[in-house]
Amino acid sequence: MVESPDTSKNDQDVPREAVVDLLGLLAYGELVSFFRLTSDALLAPTLTDKAALAGLASVEYQHYAQLRDRLTELDVDVETAMRPFIPALDAWHEVTQPQNWLEGLVKAYVGDGIAADFYRQVADALDGDTQTLVHGVLDEGERAAFVVARVREAVDQDQKLAGRLALWGRRLVGEALSQAQRVAQDHPAFAELVTAGVEESASDDDDGVGRAPARLTEGYSRRLKELGLAT
Amino acid sequence: MVESPDTSKNDQDVPREAVVDLLGLLAYGELVSFFRLTSDALLAPTLTDKAALAGLASVEYQHYAQLRDRLTELDVDVETAMRPFIPALDAWHEVTQPQNWLEGLVKAYVGDGIAADFYRQVADALDGDTQTLVHGVLDEGERAAFVVARVREAVDQDQKLAGRLALWGRRLVGEALSQAQRVAQDHPAFAELVTAGVEESASDDDDGVGRAPARLTEGYSRRLKELGLAT
Repeated sequence: MVESPDTSKNDQDVPREAVVDLLGLLAYGELVSFFRLTSDALLAPTLTDKAALAGLASVEYQHYAQLRDRLTELDVDVETAMRPFIPALDAWHEVTQPQNWLEGLVKAYVGDGIAADFYRQVADALDGDTQTLVHGVLDEGERAAFVVARVREAVDQDQKLAGRLALWGRRLVGEALSQAQRVAQDHPAFAELVTAGVEESASDDDDGVGRAPARLTEGYSRRLKELGLAT
Repeated sequence: MVESPDTSKNDQDVPREAVVDLLGLLAYGELVSFFRLTSDALLAPTLTDKAALAGLASVEYQHYAQLRDRLTELDVDVETAMRPFIPALDAWHEVTQPQNWLEGLVKAYVGDGIAADFYRQVADALDGDTQTLVHGVLDEGERAAFVVARVREAVDQDQKLAGRLALWGRRLVGEALSQAQRVAQDHPAFAELVTAGVEESASDDDDGVGRAPARLTEGYSRRLKELGLAT
C-alpha cells in the first residue's frame, strides 16, 4: 500500500478540468500498457516469462479500473476523459514498437518509468485522495523487479547488448518528450497543473520549473544504471 | 465466492497424475483465454467494450495464477504441467479464430462454456479442495452477463445474425469435441478421471458415461438459447 501523503490541498485548489485530464491520460496510459505488455508477451522466450508478462498486464488493468472508478465518482465518463489523449499515446507506441523481448522490457521499465516519474510530480499539486490514487496506480514494484532481473541477466551474458539497449532507451525518452510537448500544447489547463506540480515537488532551494527536465533526466539515468546499461 | 461442495473424497481416490493433468490443462486454458480475449478486444466496436474485454481477460489471468499456485503447492512446475496440453489447445484456437467482434463473444461464451461444463463434471471425481478451486476458476458470471447482453442486443437489431452465429456455435462445438478426443487418447489417466467424474456427477437414475455427451449437448443448447440464437 502507498501511504497517503501528508497534504492540506483539496480539489478546489486546481481546476477540475485539469484533474479530469490527468485521470483520463493515466487511464488511457494504463489501458494501452495492458494491451502492449500482452502483445510484448508474445516475444517471450519461455511460457513462464509469457505468463509473467500477462500478470504484469493484469496489474495495469487493475490500475485502469481504479482510475475509471474515480472518474465515475467525479461523474465523468471514462471514455470521454481518455479520448483527448488517444492520439499522443497511440503515436508514442507506434514509433516505439519493440523489435524483440529485451527491447519490450526496457520500454516497460524506462519508457513507462519516466512517464510515471512525470505523473508523480504532477500529482503533487493535487489533493490527498487523488495523490494517493495516482501514486498507487504508478506503483512499479513488481514490474521493476521482473524487468531488472531479466535485463541484467541478458546483459551479463552478452555485454554488447548494453550499448544497443542504452541507445534504444535514449530513443524512448526522446519520443516521450516529443509527445509530452504535444499534450501540453493541446491541454493548457493540464499544462498549468504540470507546472504547479513541479513547483510543489521541488525542494525549497530548487527553482521548480527549471529543475523539471533535470529531475526527469536524473530518473532516466538511474533507471538505465539499474538495468546495467551504459549511459 | 464458490461454496465448497460437500464431499468426502480426498486426493488418494484419484491418481495424482490425473489431478496434475487436470490442473495443467485448466491452467494453460486460462492463460490462452487471457491472450485470446485480449486479442479479440482489438475487434471491439468501442473503447469501453475494448476495456471490458481487457477486464474479462484479467479475470482469466487471476484464475491461471490460482491454478499455478495450487500446482506449486503440489510441488509441480506449472510450465511442465501445461506443456502436454499446448498442441490440442493451440490447435483448437487456430481453427476457431473469430472473424469479427460477435464471433469472438460467442466463442467466449459457447466454446469456453462447454469446455467449462466438461471440466466441472470431471472435477466431481476430485477431493473437496480441488473441486472448490476448479469450480472457482470456471466461474463465468461476469463474462456471461457481458456476452449475453452484447449478443442479444446485436441479434435484436439484425435477426439474420442469429442463424449465422448459431452455425458458428456448431462449428466451435465440433472442433472442441475433436480436440477433446485427442487429449483423451494421449492422456489415459486423465481419460479415466473424466469417466469417473461423469459417473460421479450423474444422478442415481442416470447411466453416467452414456449421459455425458447428452449433458454437454444440453448445456450447449441452453447457451445458444441464452444468446437468443436459433438452435
